[in-house]
Amino acid sequence: MSRITTLLAQMTLEEKVGQLVQLSGEFFVDEPQLTVGPKAKLGISQQQVQCAGSVLNVSGAKKTRHIQEQHLQNSRLKIPLLFMADIVYGYRTVFPIPLAMGCSWSPALIERCCQVAAQEAVSAGSHVTFAPMADLVRDARWGRCMESTGEDPLLNSRIVSACVRGFQHNLEHGEGLAACVKHFAGYGAPVAGRDYNTVELSRQSLFEDYLPPYLAAVQAGCKLVMSAFNTIDGIPATANRWLLQTVLRDRWHFDGVTIADYAAVKELIPHGVAEDERHASQLAFNAGLDIDMKSPCYVNHLAALVNQGEIPEEALNQAVMRVLQLKETLGLFDDPFRGASEEKEQAWFYHPDHLALARETAARSLVLLKNDNALLPLKPGTKVALIGPYADNPDIIGLWAVYGETSHSVTLKQALDEVLAPDELLTTQGCDLLLNYDFLGEFGATTQVDAQSCMSEEQRQTEQARALQYAREADVVLLAMGEHMMQSGEAASRTDIHLPQHQVEFIQSIARVAKKTVLILFNGRPLVLSDVVEHVDAVIEAWFPGSEGGHAIADVLYGKRNPSGRLSMSFPRANGQVPIYYNALSTGRPADKSDHSPRFISKYLDCPTTPLFPFGFGLSWHRVELSELTLAAQFCAGETLTVGITVRNLTPHAGIETVQLYLQDCVASIARPVMMLKEFQQVMLKADETRRVIFTVNEEMLTFFNAEGEKVLEPGRFNIFVGTSSVEVLKGEFIYRAA
Amino acid sequence: MSRITTLLAQMTLEEKVGQLVQLSGEFFVDEPQLTVGPKAKLGISQQQVQCAGSVLNVSGAKKTRHIQEQHLQNSRLKIPLLFMADIVYGYRTVFPIPLAMGCSWSPALIERCCQVAAQEAVSAGSHVTFAPMADLVRDARWGRCMESTGEDPLLNSRIVSACVRGFQHNLEHGEGLAACVKHFAGYGAPVAGRDYNTVELSRQSLFEDYLPPYLAAVQAGCKLVMSAFNTIDGIPATANRWLLQTVLRDRWHFDGVTIADYAAVKELIPHGVAEDERHASQLAFNAGLDIDMKSPCYVNHLAALVNQGEIPEEALNQAVMRVLQLKETLGLFDDPFRGASEEKEQAWFYHPDHLALARETAARSLVLLKNDNALLPLKPGTKVALIGPYADNPDIIGLWAVYGETSHSVTLKQALDEVLAPDELLTTQGCDLLLNYDFLGEFGATTQVDAQSCMSEEQRQTEQARALQYAREADVVLLAMGEHMMQSGEAASRTDIHLPQHQVEFIQSIARVAKKTVLILFNGRPLVLSDVVEHVDAVIEAWFPGSEGGHAIADVLYGKRNPSGRLSMSFPRANGQVPIYYNALSTGRPADKSDHSPRFISKYLDCPTTPLFPFGFGLSWHRVELSELTLAAQFCAGETLTVGITVRNLTPHAGIETVQLYLQDCVASIARPVMMLKEFQQVMLKADETRRVIFTVNEEMLTFFNAEGEKVLEPGRFNIFVGTSSVEVLKGEFIYRAA
Repeated sequence: MSRITTLLAQMTLEEKVGQLVQLSGEFFVDEPQLTVGPKAKLGISQQQVQCAGSVLNVSGAKKTRHIQEQHLQNSRLKIPLLFMADIVYGYRTVFPIPLAMGCSWSPALIERCCQVAAQEAVSAGSHVTFAPMADLVRDARWGRCMESTGEDPLLNSRIVSACVRGFQHNLEHGEGLAACVKHFAGYGAPVAGRDYNTVELSRQSLFEDYLPPYLAAVQAGCKLVMSAFNTIDGIPATANRWLLQTVLRDRWHFDGVTIADYAAVKELIPHGVAEDERHASQLAFNAGLDIDMKSPCYVNHLAALVNQGEIPEEALNQAVMRVLQLKETLGLFDDPFRGASEEKEQAWFYHPDHLALARETAARSLVLLKNDNALLPLKPGTKVALIGPYADNPDIIGLWAVYGETSHSVTLKQALDEVLAPDELLTTQGCDLLLNYDFLGEFGATTQVDAQSCMSEEQRQTEQARALQYAREADVVLLAMGEHMMQSGEAASRTDIHLPQHQVEFIQSIARVAKKTVLILFNGRPLVLSDVVEHVDAVIEAWFPGSEGGHAIADVLYGKRNPSGRLSMSFPRANGQVPIYYNALSTGRPADKSDHSPRFISKYLDCPTTPLFPFGFGLSWHRVELSELTLAAQFCAGETLTVGITVRNLTPHAGIETVQLYLQDCVASIARPVMMLKEFQQVMLKADETRRVIFTVNEEMLTFFNAEGEKVLEPGRFNIFVGTSSVEVLKGEFIYRAA
Repeated sequence: MSRITTLLAQMTLEEKVGQLVQLSGEFFVDEPQLTVGPKAKLGISQQQVQCAGSVLNVSGAKKTRHIQEQHLQNSRLKIPLLFMADIVYGYRTVFPIPLAMGCSWSPALIERCCQVAAQEAVSAGSHVTFAPMADLVRDARWGRCMESTGEDPLLNSRIVSACVRGFQHNLEHGEGLAACVKHFAGYGAPVAGRDYNTVELSRQSLFEDYLPPYLAAVQAGCKLVMSAFNTIDGIPATANRWLLQTVLRDRWHFDGVTIADYAAVKELIPHGVAEDERHASQLAFNAGLDIDMKSPCYVNHLAALVNQGEIPEEALNQAVMRVLQLKETLGLFDDPFRGASEEKEQAWFYHPDHLALARETAARSLVLLKNDNALLPLKPGTKVALIGPYADNPDIIGLWAVYGETSHSVTLKQALDEVLAPDELLTTQGCDLLLNYDFLGEFGATTQVDAQSCMSEEQRQTEQARALQYAREADVVLLAMGEHMMQSGEAASRTDIHLPQHQVEFIQSIARVAKKTVLILFNGRPLVLSDVVEHVDAVIEAWFPGSEGGHAIADVLYGKRNPSGRLSMSFPRANGQVPIYYNALSTGRPADKSDHSPRFISKYLDCPTTPLFPFGFGLSWHRVELSELTLAAQFCAGETLTVGITVRNLTPHAGIETVQLYLQDCVASIARPVMMLKEFQQVMLKADETRRVIFTVNEEMLTFFNAEGEKVLEPGRFNIFVGTSSVEVLKGEFIYRAA
């Protein structure tokens, strides 16, 4: 009998239930006598706190060691606590937001970032991270696009797998964080882009597009799965047995821990599927949900439900065993403090290697959207005016860098100061980031980002005048504009995803007087840029680039790095064009991409059907020419198909090119997308180099899911598109023949 | 053996196939020798034309009689043609567009309109109408909102039933039109509001919200069902056996004719489910699709498919029998010309009773959205300036009044001229309807609505100046603004559903100088009116009101009618707020309607969650007070629940009030909407009258569908809301107990 089996046999019902309860850090302060505060609010006793199995969002070596120590003193069976936290894209060293990292198209790079994040977090006493977020996104109104890596099932799956490997690196040797993939399932598709809203998806789309990234995490060995806030088929994911049992355990054979998102068990009541907390507990547990995060449900009702026969004790035991097994895997029974150490924190937080990786990743995540007349990189000796609310603003780490410190952000001004002589750089804010901070609501004062105040009318005029003057004086204006950090992320849905109107007007006014203008954007979602792009010479989508953002942007501006980011999410032309995504079905009346004059086609009267910037798109210093797409005309069952393409660097700039391979199943029993990313390779092109890039197409790439979730492989014609974006491609075709 | 069974036995395979082929009128012109034109285009022979079973969109007694006569001369077995046409909201006498009629909340009135439309159309030789359109709509970007009656399953179902009854009145006695409900199914839910786009719906939502209106039509006895252009679960409706066989025939027991939408069988090829026309024919027919409309598929391939055993001849016979049965039901074997008669046309077209009904319906369909300080109705002697592109514009019948004539429209100016003295009315266009007509594309010159040209710069200045002058002179300005008729309807999706910016600015400029301003809107979808409503004193949503539109609006303006329209579709506050609808699920984190300050709730940062004007809303001259909502606390299985409410007219204005009853199932196994319309009554309130309105809630109203399409009835708590819109309600509750 294993150690944990023995342990389980010794546990009381209350102790077992405790393992399925997660409380936040405030419960573990040394004030057991308190009659108000969190315990009173959730209605739980000190005894129940002492039985709790895990802690939410407490981190820091000193704090976690202290809580663990106290807990073990009080724990009858000395079962260590699990510390779980949101460590999504860095701990102290903050990497770019996931949507940005998705644009690197480099799972290997992202894996290293996750490994570094884990290293810092483990030293701070964390055991489990609520990451990666595998939610596919198609609607830029949804604020949490920021935490996704984009709109493509394959790219997301590759990245999600890399994240799991990175976080869990050497997990069983005390090094990594257990990864908890979230939010299972379909959370990224709320109706009208409004966070937490109902999700409307056919089962077929769910299987085909939305589930694969979660599956990728499970296959990569992630230890936990978090249930989503939303409904699927009208049943909240947290109480959805089809999702948590049929799909996750029966079909995917996941044997790790399932956990609800924050208070989601209790939220079964407002969802209208549970009468009360007891009922919510019963529904969630019987659906297959192991841990109740920060809700009064399991802690107060699970024992009674077992006693009253509503929940089989055997099922409870299995859930508890999964939690104990996780603690065992993490080695907590041998070393309950695991890596937590203030010395290690000192050693690892902001380690130069970590900062270097953050700098590299930010540079590889930004996307050059426009670069007329090769304005970038800037020539030495160019006189620069750096203008805008993000010119010298450290709030560039994005909303969900929970343990990040904006005080450690390198701003763009700081970075430029390092490379430019004082007389080469003129800096001023120029305009407000926002004219109104009311949207922060109750949240304004409670986060690391304080509500900013707006300039007075006098300041505004002074700033505007100075900005115009600097713009006239300089050879090039760098306009650092964007969203407020709080305008994206969780619960940050917006109906209007343009830049604020005053920023648009400011950009236009500066561009009118400037010799050359580079727009540098800091934001957490695809924006509608139709009203600014045409006014400027170059556009850098820098996203929220993290701790080393300023350095990374400066590296690109001055040619130390050749930008290689490619969009992982389409940029719409208008608010009313969302959701928009490249891998759509053709419809029976597809619009020609260039000719929209026929009436009865699937189009808008007032807007093209194409996005402003398509999936896979991005510019670099280099430009490539594609030629010689070669492949066999037939591909027989049991074999593979070799596809070659010649990529020629037309420039003297060396750089990374992401060669993308898309397929289209021309005829199938279910309508298939017009193109689907099936493989990609990043190749390092030397100056003027010509390279052959070889892909292998296999049968797996030809399969698809039907509405029953069965994988189907049908013979027939396929189109193949290989190129440098979803638009710039060479096209070929082949026939797949059954054996 | 019946006459048609005997007939079937005599038919050759080619003759049978012909009954399943629908061709447009151009095929039946007397030029059998043509080698170009429609026959050549579809690749079919004169012989095949002679076998065709039905004709699309040919109407007019002379023409249909001629074609029928010729056809019968050539038809070996003398099988008459069926003439089918789009007679959606009137024939010559045009009623308001369906979305407007939905706002009347009067199935009885709509039934009369459909009966009148049928009367005119039958005299013109039509047999089948492609109506009603039962597609539920939630996204105002979709241009075809115009042809739907709104966002509510119950209201749509009631209206659809009424339409079927109206069209098919005395059908078997030579009077009515056979109704073809469309577009089965889910056509009203294209992703991103783009017409023909992919539909993403869970089966549960499909059963619960989208299918009921089609079912209502079937239950009302409609003779045909048209398959939709879109996919369901990735399978085009036209080849979707689950829809056409499992749901429609097996579950709903529909035994009428199914027909594809225009060329939809052939469009299975661009959809990517059919290799070629032969394959498309096979898929559609085997899915359960009887008639191929205007495509070369069935006509060229069905016979071969039968001969080669890909289609069972028995299935072909059944499909043919359904078509023959329809002809028999219509009496065509006895009188192939049925009601077609130029004399009847003369008698019925624009019959005074028809025009009176159109006038009444238009008045009851318009919705008074704002009426500050009871500006309306206008007092006699008020000096009026009528300004705007719809001031004297006959293009107010909407896009799909295929047989309507704008030359017969009564414009607002014409109507006001009848009631005002010349010196009481100043009229001028004031501004262009649109500044750009490029969106008309190839369609510009081909419809009844010619591309309008814009004013010259000089005209524009003159008009603007005159409009401002009139606005200053008048006591009240009536601003007649809106969409172009071609901006809504099929294939008229728009990303931006504001009024055009120049109209917005014009409205604001007029409102600044006018003493009082009434905005009268002509449009085919809910618009975003946030930027104009606050600038004016009153707003009338007149939709496209049909032939008698001017009269109807004048009747309301001058108090001859008390407006009673109530919105059947929510009006969003912003382009980015769609889809928006009142009967949404609550989510686990519902936003309080008034307090949006908490962060982690389902909301937008930049826009309320509520619409600008909610479902069920509309003003009248009267205002009512609601009180004394009474109902039993319990409702036991097998019984019904009586609900009473007191409605008091606070004004001396008599009027129609639509009392609406909504339910909410508080806890169910599937999350249920926050409210669902379950019944409504229109009561005529006298001046200052107090009325008790009594409803009966039955068990059927408590049922819902699960994802398998099974009706479920669960005991438990229900909230009940009774009132005059989805917002202005009194709330009660009851418990439903199982037996």
